[in-house]
Amino acid sequence: MSSVSSDAPRELADLAPLLLKKERSTATFDVQSLIDVAVGPRDVQEHRKRLLELVKNDPVLSDRDMIHRNHKERYENALGKSYAFAKLLEKHNITDWDDTTTVYTFIGEPLPIDVHRSMFIPTLETQMDDEQRAYWVPRAKAFQITGAYAQTELGHGSNVQGIETTAHYDVKTQEFILNSPTLTSRKWWPGGLGKTANHCVLHARLFLNSKDHGIQAFLVPIRDTKTHETLPGITLGDIGPKIGFQSIDNGFCALNNVRIPRRNMLMRFAKVAPDGTFSKPPSDKLVYFTMVKVRVGIVYFCGRALGMVTTIGTRFSAARVQGATGKGKSENQVLDYENQQLTLFPLIGLSYAALFSHRAIDKLYNQVLAQFDGELGVDHLYLLSQLHASASGLKAFLTEETGNGMERVRRACGGHGYSASSNLPYLFQVYIGACTYEGTKDVLVQQHGAFLLKCLRNPVPVSNSSSLDLLGFLQANPNSTCPATRPEQLRDPEILLTAFRVRALKALLRADANKNSLHYLTQASLAHAESIVLSCFYEGVVGVQDTKVRVVLLQLFQLYALWRIQANLGEFRLSNYLSSAQGAWVDEQVLALLKVVRPNAISLVDGFDFSDFELNSTIGRYDGDIYRALIDRATKDPLNKTDVVPGYHQYLKPLLTAKL
Amino acid sequence: MSSVSSDAPRELADLAPLLLKKERSTATFDVQSLIDVAVGPRDVQEHRKRLLELVKNDPVLSDRDMIHRNHKERYENALGKSYAFAKLLEKHNITDWDDTTTVYTFIGEPLPIDVHRSMFIPTLETQMDDEQRAYWVPRAKAFQITGAYAQTELGHGSNVQGIETTAHYDVKTQEFILNSPTLTSRKWWPGGLGKTANHCVLHARLFLNSKDHGIQAFLVPIRDTKTHETLPGITLGDIGPKIGFQSIDNGFCALNNVRIPRRNMLMRFAKVAPDGTFSKPPSDKLVYFTMVKVRVGIVYFCGRALGMVTTIGTRFSAARVQGATGKGKSENQVLDYENQQLTLFPLIGLSYAALFSHRAIDKLYNQVLAQFDGELGVDHLYLLSQLHASASGLKAFLTEETGNGMERVRRACGGHGYSASSNLPYLFQVYIGACTYEGTKDVLVQQHGAFLLKCLRNPVPVSNSSSLDLLGFLQANPNSTCPATRPEQLRDPEILLTAFRVRALKALLRADANKNSLHYLTQASLAHAESIVLSCFYEGVVGVQDTKVRVVLLQLFQLYALWRIQANLGEFRLSNYLSSAQGAWVDEQVLALLKVVRPNAISLVDGFDFSDFELNSTIGRYDGDIYRALIDRATKDPLNKTDVVPGYHQYLKPLLTAKL
Repeated sequence: MSSVSSDAPRELADLAPLLLKKERSTATFDVQSLIDVAVGPRDVQEHRKRLLELVKNDPVLSDRDMIHRNHKERYENALGKSYAFAKLLEKHNITDWDDTTTVYTFIGEPLPIDVHRSMFIPTLETQMDDEQRAYWVPRAKAFQITGAYAQTELGHGSNVQGIETTAHYDVKTQEFILNSPTLTSRKWWPGGLGKTANHCVLHARLFLNSKDHGIQAFLVPIRDTKTHETLPGITLGDIGPKIGFQSIDNGFCALNNVRIPRRNMLMRFAKVAPDGTFSKPPSDKLVYFTMVKVRVGIVYFCGRALGMVTTIGTRFSAARVQGATGKGKSENQVLDYENQQLTLFPLIGLSYAALFSHRAIDKLYNQVLAQFDGELGVDHLYLLSQLHASASGLKAFLTEETGNGMERVRRACGGHGYSASSNLPYLFQVYIGACTYEGTKDVLVQQHGAFLLKCLRNPVPVSNSSSLDLLGFLQANPNSTCPATRPEQLRDPEILLTAFRVRALKALLRADANKNSLHYLTQASLAHAESIVLSCFYEGVVGVQDTKVRVVLLQLFQLYALWRIQANLGEFRLSNYLSSAQGAWVDEQVLALLKVVRPNAISLVDGFDFSDFELNSTIGRYDGDIYRALIDRATKDPLNKTDVVPGYHQYLKPLLTAKL
Repeated sequence: MSSVSSDAPRELADLAPLLLKKERSTATFDVQSLIDVAVGPRDVQEHRKRLLELVKNDPVLSDRDMIHRNHKERYENALGKSYAFAKLLEKHNITDWDDTTTVYTFIGEPLPIDVHRSMFIPTLETQMDDEQRAYWVPRAKAFQITGAYAQTELGHGSNVQGIETTAHYDVKTQEFILNSPTLTSRKWWPGGLGKTANHCVLHARLFLNSKDHGIQAFLVPIRDTKTHETLPGITLGDIGPKIGFQSIDNGFCALNNVRIPRRNMLMRFAKVAPDGTFSKPPSDKLVYFTMVKVRVGIVYFCGRALGMVTTIGTRFSAARVQGATGKGKSENQVLDYENQQLTLFPLIGLSYAALFSHRAIDKLYNQVLAQFDGELGVDHLYLLSQLHASASGLKAFLTEETGNGMERVRRACGGHGYSASSNLPYLFQVYIGACTYEGTKDVLVQQHGAFLLKCLRNPVPVSNSSSLDLLGFLQANPNSTCPATRPEQLRDPEILLTAFRVRALKALLRADANKNSLHYLTQASLAHAESIVLSCFYEGVVGVQDTKVRVVLLQLFQLYALWRIQANLGEFRLSNYLSSAQGAWVDEQVLALLKVVRPNAISLVDGFDFSDFELNSTIGRYDGDIYRALIDRATKDPLNKTDVVPGYHQYLKPLLTAKL
């Protein structure tokens, strides 16, 4: 364990920046080359930096105070940011969708127009027919209307088929009549629905001549576009504070005989003719395609969120010293403790794994999306079901692991991690909703697991057109055992990847043998998702051009994979795939790899290239000057405006002087 | 899987309360008898109910709004509650310490006088000599002074020996001169230190004639008791928002040549004579004895917090239906899904396990405390070190598992769990600090593990006077294997307890063989703590008089124990203590026991006897009327005061009408 040399400065506050500097000098690779891998080519990086500067220099958007306002204050403030965001885009003529997304991400706080951007517009784009799209999309993009995505209800979230809102077609007036027939049928949760949106995409059960035609999507005006007042027959409101997203008006909406024109149904796939004739969509899944898009985006979001948190945690652990190895010795960097490394390093690995996984699934998404313009054949629908299942599985697995990982890192930062000043609490709050929205784990693993079981029982002639190898694991040998004959062999990527494939297949066979057990189905889904993530991670690593970077990422891959075996050792020892001795080697190799990764730890997180502005953390600063930052931010707290707080005279003085 | 009968009411909102009623009719035991076990004798219960009514009827203390205020607003509000609390105690002549604690707990929100009550006064009581105690304690109890406990510094938390604050004795004036010599030496974190306290117990390194005499405790006036202004030489302030405890002014304090009289050092154990002669305390651990007390209290807090969360989660899961087993079938109670049971039921078990563990460790604490009045011999100090180690180990293990469990339950409640309306977010925020304060896991497992290693290497002649069997596991046979020959045998308590003892011993032997590895030491600490918790749980269960309750709690114990094996199966399969077949039996038995526990699930959480007032949750209500509660609370949200929010005119209208 290295310790701080005796000629270190006396002030720990001065030592901290020196320690980070020292860390950067021990890296075995060029950080810029890693940034090229993580962020993209240099011109992309430069372009991002220019956009970041625009946000940093904007008087409204540069606000970084996410912690002192209550829900109402945060919402009002975020409305102001929404306007500033639109003005900034206009001023600098930023129209490219990716660019606007980049700017939005830099703001670092979800805005009331979040769902308008991320779900409302994409839904209009993918679910409307050409004529509808031509009319509505430009209006939405120019903020002439602002929209919400109203699917979830008070009584139904996961089970979309249970939605109670109704849409009855009135052939005489060629209108749909929308109703919330029960208390639990009111829409509940949609972002922006309470106070901001004047339109929404509404999911309701369609009835034609009293015949049920399933859940369909409709475009519904909910507020007067002139006065912003709620339209007749509609009840709107905010559902109240939440863990995160305090800046957004997640809302409720009840409908009482609200009429909309026939052409307000989104008619790209399902259609209702003027006479009430229904045309079925080629797949039931198409109406939820926006959710698939969002799930794909969440995979990226996992990598980004965990990358930010591990950056803060690793820098803090390098800058912080605590506890000496012997009496009179100087104190150790917290990053030199094995437990701290064991918390941080595999999670740095997971951050990269999620980023690489996103690239793979995003490719599949775009492959499917491109086909929407042609005729949707069996092969295309098979690809869609692959995308749907794998997006579900990856979303369930990665959000869970990322959320748990973020909280582990935060706890590993002690009191300073508990303080809002570190920004770790805020990052967790704003992230953790991802475990819930767009499908909770328990629901998604069922969708994913059911797909895998179907593939196991009825091997579909694989079209080979998928950009992601989801089903290769079915070819593994479930009766094999791990061939490693000495500990270091466990680092062999082929041995590792095979171990995860065999585990996934065994879990699936167990699920098949226990058809009524959700537990085994869940295990099968998670094991498969894990195997896919590892493949994507490995594919990403071998694709890296720079040799030194590739070597270091490979070490991170090995550590991450072995750590996952360690965490699920019982499963890998099922039927002795790993022997007891091999199980003990796993521990040994994990600990050995921590030492290998240690000198590159800071540079690995520097590789994510998050700016101090984005991290917004006193303890995660690039320069390591954490103690002055902590004092500085605390001093500015509103409670410190006066020495004696106003409440003293009202409450504390009476308490201290009362005879008790 | 049972499903709702077809004559169920059409409104899910009406169905929910009926479902909870149905649940209560299936219990195999009398809930009141379980409450007797969990809460205590009937007269204690009645007394608690009377105290609860006082809080519920108090105009200030009955406030349940923990979610709409920001940090500053919450602090001011909590000052008001502090005053109301003191007045309530006075009015009803409540002076017994346990009673005041019960009232305080019912308030459900930490107050700025929290540390004054829980640490400041206890420290004066245990660390002051008789004369000091006689002078200061009555003043503190009557709120003539209000105090903080200032140990942690900006640069040092875990490593108390690293504290930089200094106390130099000036023999001429018989005063100590206190200084914060560096930026990182300022006190940082103590509750109430920023704005509320006018005194604090301050830990500083004592120097006599420039000779270092280690960390000692001093009573330091920090604010003028008349004007409440900060005293000369002292800088005070609030450190800013945190995850929880927004109602408290966690503060900072810097000292510049602040002088206090010699007799302001707490002199029960260490002493400084007027001429500067130092008398050593009999044990270095004594100065931190207050922390041990708090750790013991945290064990109880874990059981209580997880009990509240599992109550909310289980009731919600019983009242909520989601998804049908077949088309046209009515929907299933969420509690009927295996994954939901697997999330909830073992954690109900952990809640009871923590409550029983607290009783055991509290007994040991009181045993040690009683000895303080006599001479402290070797035997007593040995008992103190047992208490110190086991309180550390239990605190580290239980806070971690409880925190993780609370978050798992919250996620299992989907969107409604993410909403503040469920109160799950607040309960987590106010709890999760327990993983950090009074020692983080990584530090405590080292203290605990080091104690265990010492006992392994130098078996101390056990005095047998300890009320807790901490070291019996050393007698286990590390080379044995599990004797179960059929799956059901794994439920045998002796087989279960032995498995955990063998695992603890094996983990300790691994730690001993890998002396430089924190990882193995951590595993040893956690495995031992787990074994102790299980013993306490089992002891608690067999001590239950009511046969039906004992049977049900035993089932819960079995489920909990097997679930813990499942979660750590790799360790139990080390050297094949469990065979591969036995490993598979564990899964099987866990799933089988879920079905056994299912009919009693609601009554098991009813057994904690939390009132709706305490739970403060729309979805955890005793009567199951969750949907009306959700709508009702949302409707009252401040954002819903007007249909069109003020921000519309300022920001949204310009955005919607701007040409973009």
